[in-house]
Amino acid sequence: MRNLLCLAMTLPGILNAPGAEPFRQVLTSATDGVHLEGWQVSSRELDPQSPVPWSVQKHTLHGGKQEGVDVIVVDNGKLRFTLVPTRGMGVLRVEGRGVRLGWDSPVQEVVHPHYINLQSRGGLGWLEGFNEWLVRCGLEFAGHPGKDKFINNVGDQAEMDLTLHGKIANIPASEVEVVIDRDPPHRLRVRGQVNERMFYGPKFELWTELSTEPGADSFRIDDTVTNHGADDQELQVIYHTNYGPPLLQAGARFLAAAKRVVPFNARAAEGVAHYGEYAGPTKGFIEQVYCLYPYAEADGRTMVLLENAAADRAVSLRFSVEQLPYFTLWKNTTAVEEGYVTGLEPGTGFPYNRRIERQFGRVPKLKPGASRRFTLEFALYAGKAQVSRAAAEVERIQGDRQTQVDTEPAKVE
Amino acid sequence: MRNLLCLAMTLPGILNAPGAEPFRQVLTSATDGVHLEGWQVSSRELDPQSPVPWSVQKHTLHGGKQEGVDVIVVDNGKLRFTLVPTRGMGVLRVEGRGVRLGWDSPVQEVVHPHYINLQSRGGLGWLEGFNEWLVRCGLEFAGHPGKDKFINNVGDQAEMDLTLHGKIANIPASEVEVVIDRDPPHRLRVRGQVNERMFYGPKFELWTELSTEPGADSFRIDDTVTNHGADDQELQVIYHTNYGPPLLQAGARFLAAAKRVVPFNARAAEGVAHYGEYAGPTKGFIEQVYCLYPYAEADGRTMVLLENAAADRAVSLRFSVEQLPYFTLWKNTTAVEEGYVTGLEPGTGFPYNRRIERQFGRVPKLKPGASRRFTLEFALYAGKAQVSRAAAEVERIQGDRQTQVDTEPAKVE
Amino acid sequence: MRNLLCLAMTLPGILNAPGAEPFRQVLTSATDGVHLEGWQVSSRELDPQSPVPWSVQKHTLHGGKQEGVDVIVVDNGKLRFTLVPTRGMGVLRVEGRGVRLGWDSPVQEVVHPHYINLQSRGGLGWLEGFNEWLVRCGLEFAGHPGKDKFINNVGDQAEMDLTLHGKIANIPASEVEVVIDRDPPHRLRVRGQVNERMFYGPKFELWTELSTEPGADSFRIDDTVTNHGADDQELQVIYHTNYGPPLLQAGARFLAAAKRVVPFNARAAEGVAHYGEYAGPTKGFIEQVYCLYPYAEADGRTMVLLENAAADRAVSLRFSVEQLPYFTLWKNTTAVEEGYVTGLEPGTGFPYNRRIERQFGRVPKLKPGASRRFTLEFALYAGKAQVSRAAAEVERIQGDRQTQVDTEPAKVE
Repeated sequence: MRNLLCLAMTLPGILNAPGAEPFRQVLTSATDGVHLEGWQVSSRELDPQSPVPWSVQKHTLHGGKQEGVDVIVVDNGKLRFTLVPTRGMGVLRVEGRGVRLGWDSPVQEVVHPHYINLQSRGGLGWLEGFNEWLVRCGLEFAGHPGKDKFINNVGDQAEMDLTLHGKIANIPASEVEVVIDRDPPHRLRVRGQVNERMFYGPKFELWTELSTEPGADSFRIDDTVTNHGADDQELQVIYHTNYGPPLLQAGARFLAAAKRVVPFNARAAEGVAHYGEYAGPTKGFIEQVYCLYPYAEADGRTMVLLENAAADRAVSLRFSVEQLPYFTLWKNTTAVEEGYVTGLEPGTGFPYNRRIERQFGRVPKLKPGASRRFTLEFALYAGKAQVSRAAAEVERIQGDRQTQVDTEPAKVE
Repeated sequence: MRNLLCLAMTLPGILNAPGAEPFRQVLTSATDGVHLEGWQVSSRELDPQSPVPWSVQKHTLHGGKQEGVDVIVVDNGKLRFTLVPTRGMGVLRVEGRGVRLGWDSPVQEVVHPHYINLQSRGGLGWLEGFNEWLVRCGLEFAGHPGKDKFINNVGDQAEMDLTLHGKIANIPASEVEVVIDRDPPHRLRVRGQVNERMFYGPKFELWTELSTEPGADSFRIDDTVTNHGADDQELQVIYHTNYGPPLLQAGARFLAAAKRVVPFNARAAEGVAHYGEYAGPTKGFIEQVYCLYPYAEADGRTMVLLENAAADRAVSLRFSVEQLPYFTLWKNTTAVEEGYVTGLEPGTGFPYNRRIERQFGRVPKLKPGASRRFTLEFALYAGKAQVSRAAAEVERIQGDRQTQVDTEPAKVE
Repeated sequence: MRNLLCLAMTLPGILNAPGAEPFRQVLTSATDGVHLEGWQVSSRELDPQSPVPWSVQKHTLHGGKQEGVDVIVVDNGKLRFTLVPTRGMGVLRVEGRGVRLGWDSPVQEVVHPHYINLQSRGGLGWLEGFNEWLVRCGLEFAGHPGKDKFINNVGDQAEMDLTLHGKIANIPASEVEVVIDRDPPHRLRVRGQVNERMFYGPKFELWTELSTEPGADSFRIDDTVTNHGADDQELQVIYHTNYGPPLLQAGARFLAAAKRVVPFNARAAEGVAHYGEYAGPTKGFIEQVYCLYPYAEADGRTMVLLENAAADRAVSLRFSVEQLPYFTLWKNTTAVEEGYVTGLEPGTGFPYNRRIERQFGRVPKLKPGASRRFTLEFALYAGKAQVSRAAAEVERIQGDRQTQVDTEPAKVE
């Protein structure tokens, strides 16, 4: 299974069978003992008549801490997505339309979870692998490290050290497959299952799907988290999406329809008046984090936007506040070498330690057998007209509703 | 070495050379730089006249946290054994005669030690990989996590956090070989060496052998632990054998010849009157653990039995109380999704933290160069007659000797 | 990339092109996605006229905790070097001229960093892989485990547990290449890049080169450490070179030009009068460590020597006290089974915890973008005449300058 397999498929038009089962290729399966080191498929084989050429390709990284890491590259003809099944189905970057969703982390390799010790550095070991555009935080816990209580095997309340942003980003996918619709528009899907399970602990299954259409400048992430335990299970999810240049730059702006904005701590309070504006790379800059309570439309949907200084490049993120009621804005406009980056992070809560989140009622529980779904829609914009229309959509959601901007952080402990 | 090697052997009757050296195939050797990804042999090649067909097969698991895990499957014609060299030569399951030795852990993959951080969750990281039928706990320490003292490199007494059940189950075997006797009954043996060694720490070598005869409904585990250090070395071993359905069910029974039964803690004390009887899956059930001091026959041998509700399926475990003087019964009849399971666990001590075990004189030491041997014999029974005879054997060992059942746990700290 | 590649080169005399670019073979590259499982080259292919035959060979270890570890063996015709790219470009051993640079650690396998948890055993996990002749300690921290302060992501001073001797020895090389000069004497070079990088942490790049000439009985290690962060970065480096028999034996001697010798602790103080003399293997011996302040020549160079009892075998180490101003002598003449060994360790400081080293002003900082270079030169001597000449060189450096030998350790905390 470790040799490079090339799909030498000579079935022109195989996708042109509307109504048929989608094309499906398993790349990894713990159930069936499958793990392909390499694989590829493209419109040339599957849909020669495709108006835009597209491809999906799987390969394996080598060298240093990335030895053996699986990567899947989806090119929809306009955007190019790099997914990392080995790192919890995170998305390393998305490129296209003169924009990059992603950033230049000091962590330059795509670090295999083998090399991550989440407990190191007082629970900050997660930072040794942090370089994705989209990384999921969770599922049993997310947010800051620190002590929290749990029930141990003898039924006693015990204390454990939660580690920064939980485990899910450092668990390799158990099942990975590429699925392509036979019906137009032949949506391209990469699906993965990641299990956060243990004895005397959570029994979470995450099924995630990133999908896009050939030629589109938008895409979607659909996640379903299921509790396979017999008891109610606390759940924390933060979608940590991270942006550096070219979108992030001096004069870049963040737009959201917000009911309330609260600085995360005293340091963030210093800059709350300008929370949506970005500085250029600033040596010695200490992160500023803002907790937002988004407004939504009647259907529960909201939208945030990150646009560059010239307002001619932007990315939008649409999500449901019923699924993800809280939103964290992370501004880390430090020197380039240290990781000049901003995080746009919808979540089930804010990134305080779970102990604190629980006190504020922001740690939902999943019933036995229950699932919770999270859908994120992203779109890229090029040109002032497109960006301006996107910004108008955010304003429309806000409408004439007020935004309360707190000058003091919430009192925690 | 990573490609599938098939033994294309055309030597009918190769085993029929009584007195000759056994057939021997090295699957892994750190000494000689060997690691076969796949391999197999069967009676068809080695003993075409065998009254029962048997086979031994090695393969590699893929996907999720089990990527790269070695598995050996031995089929003796009646029973099928799955061993995991990568996880300290643990035995995942044994199946046959309508019985399964094993259980349904919430941990569904055979987790590579790469993914285990024993220190996580306050020292409970071991539970992230726990799903074997037979897992060895030890060797430097076993039992509950918690602080204990040790001598560090500068000769000072220092404190370290012991982790649940020690390291040996998460150390890959250095040497693995299949050995088959040329003399009838052509006993099939899988042997492995696991090293728990470090500088300024223990220098243990474990040689383990699981062996069975073609067509037999019994098998044996022979372990030898050697101290290769220059100093006396504390040793803790618990054989943690775990059973779920079909043997474990409401009405299943545990039988032992016991001199004394002591509840592990207050929770266990609640159920001590019925310690040998099992409930069905019970949501929210907290584990109950009983410490047994077994009676033995004149030769030091004792026997315990686990039988199903109908008393027509059972498994017995025979061992020497000189080798393993203590026996722990772990009842965890929680909901199926949480891991409905009971553990039958002979050991050099009970599963309290080593600090406590030492106080009670239950932490033996191995002299420099000395070895200690542990032999476990298992047999499966089908039909009321067989099960009844097995139960009678336990009763015979007990004879008219009394069992002291304590209603209070031992006072520890 | 995982299959054995053999360089089937039929270019006799390829090296005989003075002035041309050196011969270069990439064995591993994270940048280019390269990782060769096996490779070899020799004077037969590249320089058939070479007066001494030499070779460079790369292979992969198997079994136990060394599964998948890369090893490079350089044979210069007289000395044979074994390097381990997977373990931070450490050098397992050097053999030749009837001498071995190396020792017999209780750790017998070349342990893959996957299996090392630096935090285990109260921060002593490093000892589970410690068996190299030369292992680098550092780079963010080196020395004893224990708490020290650092600045965390929210700009607060936080505390972390430093682990023994830091991370660099357990980080696999990202880039590995063999470089051979086309100009005589056709120096053989193995170069590797090891990155100790994280977000909100150090951004170190280490480029290391071990090089030797065909037929030589000496070799050199050239390291360059660069700070790729935007801020000043503390740096600690200790070159931990370790020797067992045949050099180390009862009556072996350590010679250095020393301005001052200070026992590391009370235990070391007991033996300070004879700090340069070695006992044979002694059961129960507790390590003795001495802190030396070397004298150097006008050009900043100094030299230490380890010679056997008969003074007919020795190894010297030359280095610059401007690069490495401190030198630690570690005497661990315990029983053979426990690791009979002495360490000769030039460093940027002594092996106290960084917290203490900082108090004494022994933790240098690297400016943003700045590099610091470390060069070590080793030579082997055979025969009383050679050894005597080497010893005379140490004496010449000392000259008539006094050595202050403290009878008490420095007061720390």
